[in-house]
Amino acid sequence: MIHFDCDYMAGAHPEVLDTIVKNNTVQTSGYGNDDFCTRAKQLIREACGTPDAAVHFMVGGTQTNSTVLDGILRRTEGVIAAESAHINVHESGAIELSGHKVIALPSHQGKLDAEEVRTYLHDFYADETWEHMVAPGAVYVSFPTEFGTIYSLNELKALSKVCHDYKIPFYIDGARLGFGLAASADVTLKDIARLADVFYIGGTKMGALFGEAVVCTDSNLLPRFFTLMKARGAVLAKGRLLGMQYEAFFQNNLYLRIGRHGVALAQRLRKAFEGKGFHTFIDSPTNQQFFILPNEVIDRLMPVATFEYWGPRGEKESKVRFVTSWETTEEDIKTLEELL
Amino acid sequence: MIHFDCDYMAGAHPEVLDTIVKNNTVQTSGYGNDDFCTRAKQLIREACGTPDAAVHFMVGGTQTNSTVLDGILRRTEGVIAAESAHINVHESGAIELSGHKVIALPSHQGKLDAEEVRTYLHDFYADETWEHMVAPGAVYVSFPTEFGTIYSLNELKALSKVCHDYKIPFYIDGARLGFGLAASADVTLKDIARLADVFYIGGTKMGALFGEAVVCTDSNLLPRFFTLMKARGAVLAKGRLLGMQYEAFFQNNLYLRIGRHGVALAQRLRKAFEGKGFHTFIDSPTNQQFFILPNEVIDRLMPVATFEYWGPRGEKESKVRFVTSWETTEEDIKTLEELL
Amino acid sequence: MIHFDCDYMAGAHPEVLDTIVKNNTVQTSGYGNDDFCTRAKQLIREACGTPDAAVHFMVGGTQTNSTVLDGILRRTEGVIAAESAHINVHESGAIELSGHKVIALPSHQGKLDAEEVRTYLHDFYADETWEHMVAPGAVYVSFPTEFGTIYSLNELKALSKVCHDYKIPFYIDGARLGFGLAASADVTLKDIARLADVFYIGGTKMGALFGEAVVCTDSNLLPRFFTLMKARGAVLAKGRLLGMQYEAFFQNNLYLRIGRHGVALAQRLRKAFEGKGFHTFIDSPTNQQFFILPNEVIDRLMPVATFEYWGPRGEKESKVRFVTSWETTEEDIKTLEELL
Amino acid sequence: MIHFDCDYMAGAHPEVLDTIVKNNTVQTSGYGNDDFCTRAKQLIREACGTPDAAVHFMVGGTQTNSTVLDGILRRTEGVIAAESAHINVHESGAIELSGHKVIALPSHQGKLDAEEVRTYLHDFYADETWEHMVAPGAVYVSFPTEFGTIYSLNELKALSKVCHDYKIPFYIDGARLGFGLAASADVTLKDIARLADVFYIGGTKMGALFGEAVVCTDSNLLPRFFTLMKARGAVLAKGRLLGMQYEAFFQNNLYLRIGRHGVALAQRLRKAFEGKGFHTFIDSPTNQQFFILPNEVIDRLMPVATFEYWGPRGEKESKVRFVTSWETTEEDIKTLEELL
Repeated sequence: MIHFDCDYMAGAHPEVLDTIVKNNTVQTSGYGNDDFCTRAKQLIREACGTPDAAVHFMVGGTQTNSTVLDGILRRTEGVIAAESAHINVHESGAIELSGHKVIALPSHQGKLDAEEVRTYLHDFYADETWEHMVAPGAVYVSFPTEFGTIYSLNELKALSKVCHDYKIPFYIDGARLGFGLAASADVTLKDIARLADVFYIGGTKMGALFGEAVVCTDSNLLPRFFTLMKARGAVLAKGRLLGMQYEAFFQNNLYLRIGRHGVALAQRLRKAFEGKGFHTFIDSPTNQQFFILPNEVIDRLMPVATFEYWGPRGEKESKVRFVTSWETTEEDIKTLEELL
Repeated sequence: MIHFDCDYMAGAHPEVLDTIVKNNTVQTSGYGNDDFCTRAKQLIREACGTPDAAVHFMVGGTQTNSTVLDGILRRTEGVIAAESAHINVHESGAIELSGHKVIALPSHQGKLDAEEVRTYLHDFYADETWEHMVAPGAVYVSFPTEFGTIYSLNELKALSKVCHDYKIPFYIDGARLGFGLAASADVTLKDIARLADVFYIGGTKMGALFGEAVVCTDSNLLPRFFTLMKARGAVLAKGRLLGMQYEAFFQNNLYLRIGRHGVALAQRLRKAFEGKGFHTFIDSPTNQQFFILPNEVIDRLMPVATFEYWGPRGEKESKVRFVTSWETTEEDIKTLEELL
Repeated sequence: MIHFDCDYMAGAHPEVLDTIVKNNTVQTSGYGNDDFCTRAKQLIREACGTPDAAVHFMVGGTQTNSTVLDGILRRTEGVIAAESAHINVHESGAIELSGHKVIALPSHQGKLDAEEVRTYLHDFYADETWEHMVAPGAVYVSFPTEFGTIYSLNELKALSKVCHDYKIPFYIDGARLGFGLAASADVTLKDIARLADVFYIGGTKMGALFGEAVVCTDSNLLPRFFTLMKARGAVLAKGRLLGMQYEAFFQNNLYLRIGRHGVALAQRLRKAFEGKGFHTFIDSPTNQQFFILPNEVIDRLMPVATFEYWGPRGEKESKVRFVTSWETTEEDIKTLEELL
Repeated sequence: MIHFDCDYMAGAHPEVLDTIVKNNTVQTSGYGNDDFCTRAKQLIREACGTPDAAVHFMVGGTQTNSTVLDGILRRTEGVIAAESAHINVHESGAIELSGHKVIALPSHQGKLDAEEVRTYLHDFYADETWEHMVAPGAVYVSFPTEFGTIYSLNELKALSKVCHDYKIPFYIDGARLGFGLAASADVTLKDIARLADVFYIGGTKMGALFGEAVVCTDSNLLPRFFTLMKARGAVLAKGRLLGMQYEAFFQNNLYLRIGRHGVALAQRLRKAFEGKGFHTFIDSPTNQQFFILPNEVIDRLMPVATFEYWGPRGEKESKVRFVTSWETTEEDIKTLEELL
């Protein structure tokens, strides 16, 4: 069986796991007050080009999104996001459970349009009844999006500018950030760090056992954040595990290497499908690929490969998603190609 | 340096870590829908003697306490707990952040008194204004308590009965459950499972990298709990890591072996201190030991051993806490003994 | 100046105010435990044909909607509502502040379509990832809607049926219920009470100083609701004021009389506009009327009449809203007619 | 029957009610954007000597306390209050429902001790684990307290200073403020306004139908407070009713006149009891009086006078509370005196 169903179905990249195993008996302080975390944070700050940024480690994506947004937003503020955003669909209402509305704007293959955000903000404050409505207190985008698409540098700049103009934080969910950076023609980690007020460098989907690293460049944005994290159950007792993994990620450029690996194989996979005459229904440059396949092909693949079924398209075809990860090999792609 | 400061300062017990390493490249479903979790849950149900219990895995203690209590309590209900309870002191107000008051009753070396709980409940409903007050919707105890003490079987039965009489769930925080069971003369895991409506079998402090296993024997108590967990950021994407660790814990009786190991060494440690004429200020039968030491002894130990300073006692003495864990060795105790 | 801007811009209907004045020095118990409330609840139960219904009095609409829905919904559930619903737009995120998502479905001139609700519910549970999404836990409609439109009896039956089929409560926001009932060809208060699981009979917009009466026919739906109301600041100390006003409303059929008065004058007002060749842009049978007027007419009316400007329609026309209330007189309509 | 059970058992003081009746048909804007509110706010600012203070009107005490504190406190902060404080006992957990812990310190006949508050704050930040605990984010006192006692000017200054030193807001619950000011030897409304960062001038218990006026002298403390009020259901649609009542209160010194009336009659009442040899068990200078009475006297009074029974004291005596209000007359006191 070859696996393309998701990028968090196995354990950790060997270099990441090794550091946990190797340091297993070392005694450290808890809650992230250890040397592994200190070093990892320093490496992240350097990679981001933000020497003064605060770095906070959390365990998973929903936890990170809801905790960061709860920290950023005033009590009655909401967050602008694309209708398809993870926080609006697949996080079980975590944002609302914290008291905040997700203000859903149209999704353009997963992406927000900066001009639409600007118009929304303009119209909001132009409405006489705005005090009776949920004020937009932040803008959320995912990079890459839930559909594998990515923003260009100019698109990110435009979003950052509209946030800046309206004095609300710009937050980037980087659950698959490494794949996004590897796929982008012009966006670097330093750009992300410069344009976002707060973002996270995803670990779980990039080859960690678990873990997400929040980077906050605005020192006033998350006051007493440790206490908020703790109160929300988002502090890992053995925080060192997060430090170890991110140290591994950022020590020998591993994080980007994994990103490039996944993206390269995804492109090969795409070519394999297209070479057989099959088409994508979303044009994704990252590690998620979306194809329209004849149902008979799907039936043929099912017993030997895992992938996600996304629903029918007419009577004889269906939409499917294939995902590569740190674990995917050239061999896997070849095997798949032969099966097509 | 020998370490006695806490029981979660190192990684995982080798048997626990091995299973993660060994199965690293195995592909499974996410979110706990994998065979490791299925087998671990089955082992736990068997160990508890509760074939129908629901088992839920979470990552840490504060997360577990606040998520379970948020699931159990009605919107305006509070939870009765000892004033010294972890949820009342060191969880950053996680219970209140979820909307619930911690109703603090006197702490008897960390323990609630069943008669005092009964009196509180009686007086509450005898008060004409009770509808204007926070209704007690659950009783929380920790086993062992934050001071290492444990309830006898009769004490647990009395607490369970008062909860039953008032139809409110009895919840046991078992962050260090293994040490408590190992130290108890009469309480078994099956007793815990029979007397509590919901409890958790702590992993983080018992030798896991992380993880807590909630056992709920009342099938109506936590409806749609997965969604609540997810909305609170308490679902681990690679849930298999929890299943693997608990499978290791419950496969060869490892969980209780670790408990017994910690307790045995704690007793040896206590004898070492008492043999030198030092006294405890709390009579703990578990892996946490509390001593009064002359300040000069403390000064002597500091450079070579880690332990927790709990504050002065008069001018020449102080209170300290020593903790054993799966990692503590006979050698460590001997070294300490020689230092005294 | 003649007033058509809204139905809560003056004090109370004289018959309502008189009872407050007349009984001012009477001493009663607080918090609604008084004879006025008891009698008013009884009158409401009789008018609804629901002898066993629970009746709760609150002060305002947003307070009522958010408190009732917080009482009905499980911790992670959301409420289905039309995109234009008051709870989704003009209540400052009150529902989200309580932790619940408003699941917005298309608005058909303010109304939900029962088939669309059914499809949403069907698709929700057909989606494999439903446990990662916000479960719909209630359906909210307003009667009349924010656009003055009303559901037919068959439409209400269809909505009630889909709720019943999916075992979720059907909640009707009756802020202007009296105007809706007066305008409806087939819906009576008894129908509302039979088809909804919980609804409220609005007072503030119907001629009370303030006040909304929640009627709950499902005795399991709002357990310990007084405490929830109190914890949300929704219990009026001098609860008698609510009892007095609703006793007045339901003693001599005043509530429906006010409804009919407002609707009759709204129809006259509409004819006055249509007689001059102006058109409505929403076909409302209730006390809110929506016209397209040439800007020059608007300019002419502004100094002598109040009404709501709803924005431009092309270059020379605009959309406006005129509202009648218990206070509107035939004279007002005539004066307006002459001005057109 | 003569009434001494509470100060909110009747309607409103005639001068307060008259303004509502007199202006019933006047049309105004809603939500407090009317001339009555504007004038009332101005009168309050003048009476407080705080020309720049923000004034917000709400309906009831629990609503006011929980909304103000939710506005003041950061997400994970708690509020320090006396154990007997209304917010800690009789508000159904409203503070916790908003996510905040009530940090209960000892009650000295209802009062907080400034030195104890200072010690708590000092010890809190001296504790290494403070980030794992609920940070105190405000101090709450009631003036008068729930036991009718009042702080001296020096006591208020000391509390204000400790808050100032720790940079946390000082909040005064003035549900019965008028009675407190009338009874105080040295505290004026201007002192309250100078020493508190935010406080409210209670209306419900002082002779209004309902209403509390929040005065906030720190302009950064409650940003976008209207939206928070609205989201919490604390905005009255016909906000004018609050403006009218407070205009009446502050136009001809009515508020203080009511305070003095209640206090004067309470003193007469106390003398009546003491003249018959009965003693108080709390030394209250305000409109609440607390006596120990022989049970036979209680039995004699019951059929002809209302008052609150506070529980037995030994076998033959009990504790009772008598309360005066704007409605109490000299005649009532004489009648009572004769009954003793």
